[in-house]
Amino acid sequence: MTEIHVRSAKPEDAARILELIEALAAFENLSDMVRATEADILRDGFGDRPYFECLLAESCGKAVGFALFFHSYSTFVGRSGIYLEDLFVLEDARSLGVGRKLVSRLAQLAVERNCARFELSVLDWNPARQFYHHLGFRHQEDWLPYRVTGEALRKLAEGS
Amino acid sequence: MTEIHVRSAKPEDAARILELIEALAAFENLSDMVRATEADILRDGFGDRPYFECLLAESCGKAVGFALFFHSYSTFVGRSGIYLEDLFVLEDARSLGVGRKLVSRLAQLAVERNCARFELSVLDWNPARQFYHHLGFRHQEDWLPYRVTGEALRKLAEGS
Repeated sequence: MTEIHVRSAKPEDAARILELIEALAAFENLSDMVRATEADILRDGFGDRPYFECLLAESCGKAVGFALFFHSYSTFVGRSGIYLEDLFVLEDARSLGVGRKLVSRLAQLAVERNCARFELSVLDWNPARQFYHHLGFRHQEDWLPYRVTGEALRKLAEGS
Repeated sequence: MTEIHVRSAKPEDAARILELIEALAAFENLSDMVRATEADILRDGFGDRPYFECLLAESCGKAVGFALFFHSYSTFVGRSGIYLEDLFVLEDARSLGVGRKLVSRLAQLAVERNCARFELSVLDWNPARQFYHHLGFRHQEDWLPYRVTGEALRKLAEGS
């Protein structure tokens, strides 16, 4: 059986992380939304003010999956949480338990860091919903995500 | 008209922030879920590794509303985002535009910090949905929030 090794990403992984982000976007039919560059990944993951952390899953020394996350916060519990922004495993490496390994490692990190929760969002059509449910995640049906971007965000800022 | 002044919270505001969190929880009928202490707020908002930032809205020198947030990350855009975890205005201070002022200031921060987006979650029954919609936020209907906590989280961690 193929050995899967999970490790924290390093600055020299920035190009590979971007490739995996692009592969995820293609899977989600959102390729035209990717504007991130290797420099963005390097700055925001490994610079003076890191905005995310990343785990890589390697098979034979090659990263075949990644889990990119940041810390959220629960004011009710008074503890941080882990928010999984991206999880993706390349098609060739599926059914090897790579995704499960990445998610379990993140859960371990959440416990080590005394986090209150481990969260993520899934597109409604994505079969990964079953995968997450099986791992213990539950759909928070009463919480609705809202977002403002682009021109509407700038307009809102001007009203301050 | 009552003057509303918005400022960044300081360590000495920790007790007041906790009071506002408790008032929000009462409004959401979730008071029994609040386990945070003043020490938690002090450590996680103002310690060596801050997990959140907080704005306070003051009227006559008294904080009547707060906006507590952290940074999310968009891998597709390659830029951070602002995630508004809590927004609350005390009942006596409503209809003075306090909430709008806090949200606009956060939008301004998002623009200043070159953020890709400004996000939040609302309970499905909360009339604040109309308020956010009016300000330009849109419900991300195809994204479903999932979460694992407590015993299920520990079990998932053990599988790593």
